[in-house]
Amino acid sequence: MSEKGLMISVSGPSGVGKGTIIEEIRRMFPECKHSISVTTRPPRGEEQDGVEYYFRTKDEFEKLVKEGEIIEYDMYVDNYYGTPATPLIEKSNRGDDVLLDITIAGSLALKRKFPQAVTIFILPPSFEKLEERLKGRGTESLELVQKRLEKAREEVLSAEKFDYVVVNDDLQTAVDNIVAIMKAEKCRYDRLSGIEKTL
Amino acid sequence: MSEKGLMISVSGPSGVGKGTIIEEIRRMFPECKHSISVTTRPPRGEEQDGVEYYFRTKDEFEKLVKEGEIIEYDMYVDNYYGTPATPLIEKSNRGDDVLLDITIAGSLALKRKFPQAVTIFILPPSFEKLEERLKGRGTESLELVQKRLEKAREEVLSAEKFDYVVVNDDLQTAVDNIVAIMKAEKCRYDRLSGIEKTL
Repeated sequence: MSEKGLMISVSGPSGVGKGTIIEEIRRMFPECKHSISVTTRPPRGEEQDGVEYYFRTKDEFEKLVKEGEIIEYDMYVDNYYGTPATPLIEKSNRGDDVLLDITIAGSLALKRKFPQAVTIFILPPSFEKLEERLKGRGTESLELVQKRLEKAREEVLSAEKFDYVVVNDDLQTAVDNIVAIMKAEKCRYDRLSGIEKTL
Repeated sequence: MSEKGLMISVSGPSGVGKGTIIEEIRRMFPECKHSISVTTRPPRGEEQDGVEYYFRTKDEFEKLVKEGEIIEYDMYVDNYYGTPATPLIEKSNRGDDVLLDITIAGSLALKRKFPQAVTIFILPPSFEKLEERLKGRGTESLELVQKRLEKAREEVLSAEKFDYVVVNDDLQTAVDNIVAIMKAEKCRYDRLSGIEKTL
């Protein structure tokens, strides 16, 4: 029996505070690995292949998609950004946990490809609070806030396809719950299969 | 959506430290309910029906067994001791968590009757350590210690039928893991089904 690392994805609607939650978990678990994306945009400054991103040409990227190597991808300012499968498998096989900051569609694609992945959906405590938070940023027009809210109302309906739901009312409670999920998942018999024969 | 309480069972071989672990969890979560057993032994001293035990006659007990009300039972010094189903359902429906200190067979029966129950198996870090602990009690003959060890070797093979496995190497780590399992289970989408529609 060799213990594999967890693949954990965290997703949620815009404004739900996912970024802050993930930052806090990474602070608490610096040994938890990132998923490095593949992109077709050229490296900037000191960026190195395999560190900030895997840098590939458009042809190479499209070939990776065809081969099923890209779990999910988006296009942004005319460049592809995708999540590659092989580094995830390698990290997990080495026993490293990987925390993925990924879109809702990305989490669902991850779970389809790796049923052993753990998917977490962050919910706002209410849409009123989500609206307050979006407005509180002060960076977006009221119209854009309303658009984001509408999108969030649709997006939360995907929660039922996730393994876990964490309500982000209080940051520390939300982080505690995700840490608990990570600890608990490591105790699932399915992940420790055969441990009783190694004593 | 009304949130149901968890039914959590903790089982493991003799000498594994289950009692101490459960005591510690109860200390941390005094709101966590016990499962009150049904027994055919008469009440002693100040014991009250429905507090220490539900006191029933042998006929009544056997009727409860026939009706499927007793999840599991044992006989000890000519009296039955069993775990009744209805109080568990009632507590869970009220939103109360119930922690069951129960035999391995009892956990398996609980899971069959209530698939939503969470079953945890406590493993020793090794059989050498288990032997040390059993000898350390100093209350049992070496022959009895050997018998218990042999039984434990058989019993641990049931771990695969449990949801979670917790190794009791260090008490605090084992307790932490069980607390994490309880927190995580409360975040499972299955238990919160529909929450996204109540925001």
